Amino acid sequence: MVTVLKLGGSVITEKEHPEILATERVDQIADRLQSSMTERLILILGGGSFGHPAADRHGLSVELGTHDARAIADVHGAMLRLVDHVIERFVEREIPAVAFHPMSMGVRDGDTLTLSHDGVQAAFEEGFIPTLHGDGIVTVDDGVTILSGDTLVADLAHQFDADRVGLCSRVPGVLDEEGKVIDRIEHFSSVSSVVGESDATDVTGGMAGKVETLLDLGIPASVFDLDSLGDFLEGAQPGTTIDGSRVN
Amino acid sequence: MVTVLKLGGSVITEKEHPEILATERVDQIADRLQSSMTERLILILGGGSFGHPAADRHGLSVELGTHDARAIADVHGAMLRLVDHVIERFVEREIPAVAFHPMSMGVRDGDTLTLSHDGVQAAFEEGFIPTLHGDGIVTVDDGVTILSGDTLVADLAHQFDADRVGLCSRVPGVLDEEGKVIDRIEHFSSVSSVVGESDATDVTGGMAGKVETLLDLGIPASVFDLDSLGDFLEGAQPGTTIDGSRVN
Repeated sequence: MVTVLKLGGSVITEKEHPEILATERVDQIADRLQSSMTERLILILGGGSFGHPAADRHGLSVELGTHDARAIADVHGAMLRLVDHVIERFVEREIPAVAFHPMSMGVRDGDTLTLSHDGVQAAFEEGFIPTLHGDGIVTVDDGVTILSGDTLVADLAHQFDADRVGLCSRVPGVLDEEGKVIDRIEHFSSVSSVVGESDATDVTGGMAGKVETLLDLGIPASVFDLDSLGDFLEGAQPGTTIDGSRVN
Repeated sequence: MVTVLKLGGSVITEKEHPEILATERVDQIADRLQSSMTERLILILGGGSFGHPAADRHGLSVELGTHDARAIADVHGAMLRLVDHVIERFVEREIPAVAFHPMSMGVRDGDTLTLSHDGVQAAFEEGFIPTLHGDGIVTVDDGVTILSGDTLVADLAHQFDADRVGLCSRVPGVLDEEGKVIDRIEHFSSVSSVVGESDATDVTGGMAGKVETLLDLGIPASVFDLDSLGDFLEGAQPGTTIDGSRVN
C-alpha cells in the first residue's frame, strides 16, 4: 500500500505572511502521521508563503522560466527553508522524513517531465518517508521554470504505482456555489464554473489546476482539510473524491 | 572545455568554527570566477565546518550509515545552509551558480554510486554553473552514508568527460616531509609516507583519500590553494599535479 500525500502550502505555511511556518498545523500533521506509521508514505510539500511570493516576485511560473541565477536561488532557497523547517519538526517526533529536492532530480523539456526516482525509491525501501516539495526545474531553452507540488503528486503517484493519493488543503474539499463540499468529481466540465483561482498568490494553478491534474491520475484522489487527515490516513475517503479513471 | 572544480571545505568555511562561512575567501573565489566566465564549469563544495561536525557527531562516514532521520536532517541541513550561503554570494556577483543536491540525485549500493545527471547536464547546457556539495546518500541496507566532495569530483569528471579537474585547498599542494609542494604524483606509494590525516574533523578521508581518488581519475588533476585559483582557471597547472593515467 503506497500513499502519496500532498500537504498544501496553505496548510503548512501562513499563506499571507512570507516565509512563516504554520507551526501548530505542522505539529498537528506530525501527530496524525505518528498515529499511522504503518503506511508506506511519500510526502509532497506545497510552496505556500515560501515558494510562491519568490516566484511571483521574479515573474516565474510553470510556463515562464528564467536564466537569472538570483531568481532561481530565491525560489529554490525559499523552498529549502520550508522543507528544512517541516523536516525539523517531523524528525523531532521520530517521523523518518528525508528531504528530496526535485530540481536536483531531473529536467523538463516542453511538456515532458523526466525525474530520476532512484534516491526516493531507495529511501522508501530503507524505511524513510521521502519528502519532496514544489521547486524550480531546469527546462530546456527556458532556464528554470516552476515545478508545482501538484505535478509532483501526479509524477510520484504514477512512478510508485500509488494506491492512494491525498491532498490536505485549507478547505474541506472542492466547494460548490453554496460552499458545500462536492462529494465526487469525474469530469472537469461539471465543476469548471465553481473552481476559480485560489485567493492568495499561487503561481501553480489553484484549485482548477489541482482538479485537472487529479482527474488525469488514473486513480481516485481525495481533497480534504486537516480535520480529516487522520481519517484519510486510516483508509477513508474524506472531502471530495476526484476520479477521472472511468472517463480516461 | 569542461572544468570540474572542487572548493575545499577548509577554504570556504572556517574549519575550526561550526557553520561559519569564510566570507572573505568565498568572495575572493567569486572574483576569480568572475574573471574567467568563459569556462564551462561544474563546482563541488566540500563540507568543512558545516557537514563534517554534524556527520562526526552522529558517527556517520562514507562507510558507516544511519537510519536515524534526525542525523540525516542534521548533516543534509548543514550542507544546504552551506550551499545556500555560497550561492548567495556568487549570484550577487552575477555568477550563474545553481545548486544541485547529490542525495536527491541517486543511490549507492556497495561500492557502486549511481547518480542521475539529467538536471546538472541541462543546467550546464542552459549556461548555469551547476554547484554540488558533499552530502548524504541513500545506501542500500545502510540507510544514509556520507557522499564526499572528492567522490563527487570523480563522478562528475567522468560523467562530463572533464578536460580539467582542480581542487582548491588550504594548502598550496600536496606537501613533502619538508613542507614543500610536490610537483607531480603518479603513484600513491611515492607519497603514502607523507599524506597523513587532515588536521581537523574530516570524515571523508583527508589528503590521502584525495590523492587516491584523483589518481584513479584518468586525467591529471591539480591541487592548489586560493592564491593559485586564478592561474588554474586561466589554464595553468599550479600546485601538485596528480596524474595516475600512465599507471592505470
